[in-house]
Amino acid sequence: MKRDPYANNLQVRPDGTLRHFLSIEGLDQALLTRVLDTAESFDAASQKNVRKLPLLRGKTVLNLFFEPSTRTRTTFDLAARRLSADVVNLDINASSAVKGESLLDTLRTLEAMRSDLFVIRHPQAGAAEFFARHVPEGVAVLNAGDGRHAHPTQAMLDLFTIRRHRPDLENLVVVIVGDVAHSRVARSQIQVLNLFGVRQVRVVGPATLIPSGVEQMGVHLYSSLDDAMVDADVVIGLRLQKERMRGPLLTSSEEYYQRYGITAKRLTLARPECLVMHPGPMNRGIEIDSEVADGPQSTVLEQVRNGLAVRMAIMALTMGAGPGLATESGQ
Amino acid sequence: MKRDPYANNLQVRPDGTLRHFLSIEGLDQALLTRVLDTAESFDAASQKNVRKLPLLRGKTVLNLFFEPSTRTRTTFDLAARRLSADVVNLDINASSAVKGESLLDTLRTLEAMRSDLFVIRHPQAGAAEFFARHVPEGVAVLNAGDGRHAHPTQAMLDLFTIRRHRPDLENLVVVIVGDVAHSRVARSQIQVLNLFGVRQVRVVGPATLIPSGVEQMGVHLYSSLDDAMVDADVVIGLRLQKERMRGPLLTSSEEYYQRYGITAKRLTLARPECLVMHPGPMNRGIEIDSEVADGPQSTVLEQVRNGLAVRMAIMALTMGAGPGLATESGQ
Amino acid sequence: MKRDPYANNLQVRPDGTLRHFLSIEGLDQALLTRVLDTAESFDAASQKNVRKLPLLRGKTVLNLFFEPSTRTRTTFDLAARRLSADVVNLDINASSAVKGESLLDTLRTLEAMRSDLFVIRHPQAGAAEFFARHVPEGVAVLNAGDGRHAHPTQAMLDLFTIRRHRPDLENLVVVIVGDVAHSRVARSQIQVLNLFGVRQVRVVGPATLIPSGVEQMGVHLYSSLDDAMVDADVVIGLRLQKERMRGPLLTSSEEYYQRYGITAKRLTLARPECLVMHPGPMNRGIEIDSEVADGPQSTVLEQVRNGLAVRMAIMALTMGAGPGLATESGQ
Repeated sequence: MKRDPYANNLQVRPDGTLRHFLSIEGLDQALLTRVLDTAESFDAASQKNVRKLPLLRGKTVLNLFFEPSTRTRTTFDLAARRLSADVVNLDINASSAVKGESLLDTLRTLEAMRSDLFVIRHPQAGAAEFFARHVPEGVAVLNAGDGRHAHPTQAMLDLFTIRRHRPDLENLVVVIVGDVAHSRVARSQIQVLNLFGVRQVRVVGPATLIPSGVEQMGVHLYSSLDDAMVDADVVIGLRLQKERMRGPLLTSSEEYYQRYGITAKRLTLARPECLVMHPGPMNRGIEIDSEVADGPQSTVLEQVRNGLAVRMAIMALTMGAGPGLATESGQ
Repeated sequence: MKRDPYANNLQVRPDGTLRHFLSIEGLDQALLTRVLDTAESFDAASQKNVRKLPLLRGKTVLNLFFEPSTRTRTTFDLAARRLSADVVNLDINASSAVKGESLLDTLRTLEAMRSDLFVIRHPQAGAAEFFARHVPEGVAVLNAGDGRHAHPTQAMLDLFTIRRHRPDLENLVVVIVGDVAHSRVARSQIQVLNLFGVRQVRVVGPATLIPSGVEQMGVHLYSSLDDAMVDADVVIGLRLQKERMRGPLLTSSEEYYQRYGITAKRLTLARPECLVMHPGPMNRGIEIDSEVADGPQSTVLEQVRNGLAVRMAIMALTMGAGPGLATESGQ
Repeated sequence: MKRDPYANNLQVRPDGTLRHFLSIEGLDQALLTRVLDTAESFDAASQKNVRKLPLLRGKTVLNLFFEPSTRTRTTFDLAARRLSADVVNLDINASSAVKGESLLDTLRTLEAMRSDLFVIRHPQAGAAEFFARHVPEGVAVLNAGDGRHAHPTQAMLDLFTIRRHRPDLENLVVVIVGDVAHSRVARSQIQVLNLFGVRQVRVVGPATLIPSGVEQMGVHLYSSLDDAMVDADVVIGLRLQKERMRGPLLTSSEEYYQRYGITAKRLTLARPECLVMHPGPMNRGIEIDSEVADGPQSTVLEQVRNGLAVRMAIMALTMGAGPGLATESGQ
């Protein structure tokens, strides 16, 4: 899995602890398991109505969103506050981008203000890594989505959600449906599911929305969703990123729904308790039927909830503040 | 007054405490008096330079503004902070609305992040109630203005302001001037003033801006402001919601001012200490003369100040955290 | 230096302490030295990883930005949080400006919400002073840039940066290069450098970007940057405010760079350790060469870092909360 050896150095400290969180690639199962376990402990605290933990008291988190987002930004914001950090949100559009400052100068300027943790979403692949290469020791960078490259916190919260229901990851067949070509979520999901040794990851979608050579990512390509659903334990619908598509990749929403929509009928082809997942926001009636989205097998809202705990865990660990960290040995 | 019996169930818990705050309709005088009294205690604390109260420590308030607003959003923001809550502001335009998520999915997503209190302003009537119907027990929804329907926190701060100056509410003649048809503020004011038994509520404005059948709301309709001012104890100027009007409802600002502007001369027709109120922002020289707006009878800034205490009270009570609540009996 | 005697009254309390911070004009060296010394103590605390000071606990800071800004707003935001204040950020464009409220009404409304400190950036000269004239005793106003008039916190952080490297201010030759005519930064810098008695302030830039009569501000005007650099101890590049210029004031960026760009070659004309400063954001290759901007003599990022400490100091002092204030005598 380590085609990207430098990433390992960038994301992990010599003592094996997490320094940045940029992509699944370059991280190993032991470290990511620690993320999941830390998230479990935060979620347990939250269930007991412990709403604020003092782990990041006095730390400053900068949320840098170069793309708009309600959901993801709010989750990072809330996660940081529950760790008692100060949070500054920056939507970089109407501000320094207006004045034409380079990304590196923006970064250096913000860094000079002595922030401890940057959360960055950016339309260009590699933006978070670029930041990580330029911040000093002690400052962490979290990738909240960079172009089509990666969205690793989403993949981790998906894995967290699956593991809760099905700790026997090695037995699972997971189906990913939809616009894989434009999805940073799918890329990160495929990586993490393979790293954790799920039995099979299947990918299905319109030929124009499946990247060529996708099998080299360690997935099985299907052309029919009905076929892919057979024996599935988990089905993940991807958001149809309309705004990312150029030209006539799709004929119509209706046709998409006919062929790739996750419907109640299709769900009967899968294993009885097959989980239905979606990173949101959902296009109901296109990627997924409302009956399924709101049904008992859907984990859509649970994913959002888990996103908080997982992001808290990643923030705490990169800041060297995870609970129980002292008693755990390095990677 | 309870034409809307379901609203009672939605806003009030079985033990008579406040669950949501969506509209005056459905609430009774005892409960709203508790809001006013709680606000008094918060204002007294503020006067003594007690700036932060720990009542909502660890709670998260989400300010969801689907319409822009400096004034109202900032007041809710400050009110929540003075109760030691964490506040996340979401202007939902450039974010999830871009991606076309439904209101219900946005709500469920935000709810899944374990917020405790939603403050919502939305251009559609009923949006806050819609939210309230879908949040779980323990989560409160406050209406910060929904379409033309209601703006109940504004009505409460107006009532609070009047009561401070004139606790003998049953003796008062209150005049509401202007664009009643498009005003959620006016609707909520009329309801709360009648509920508290003021002697008379008078309404006056251009015929095109007065809803037909307004008398059924329990008001006296006047066609001349000069007539309406006679014996008035309170006169409330409404904001001319230019952006809400369609077509030729008004001839000109000048004509409006001539006929419906609150001027020093008109004020002489009222009782000597007649209060002059306006929810803001004021269009000076249209709805109100600057001399009056800044004069000794104006409560415009006092209303803003009181808005903080009233919103703190509503937040605290819906969260079950009001001071002295333990010693008060239920509704 | 006190051509503006009223400003003295407005900015300084009768006991000689700082009330507002609107412009360098009207303040004296003793008071500004106290700002610098306070900033030193905050910076020292920050170096020792004391990230939060309780000096403004319970106070509310309103950041009112009528012009977009990442850098300055974020610095004020962080400075206030490190003093434990609550911070509310208001970008006034999409909000009350939409509704056409006057600046004074906006101010009064925000003031009625019981804020303690306003930070204001506004495209009109005099806006901050206008605010200061209308807030009650106990509320402070900080100018974060008003039109072409002043940007005094920027000038103070520049002075702070220079003093750290060269406490012998009276020996220094400081060169200011560029668009002096449109620069509020330059105006404030010239004032503070003269107030602190630097040996010589030189100004150089295209004739169209130098205000006529600039020598009356106490500077030496040069037409050639090469000439101005001789014996310089500090060179400050101003940002080319493209958005502020109207008409054909400049022929081209290339020509500007040829004549007024701060390059490594030009730097050799100055004193050996000449500091290179820029308020940011930099237009690399126009005002400054990247080799110089990122070189050992550049203080660009140090200026940003110092901006935090200096703004913390100004906030604390105007709130009567500076460390060691009790033991210092008045002005």
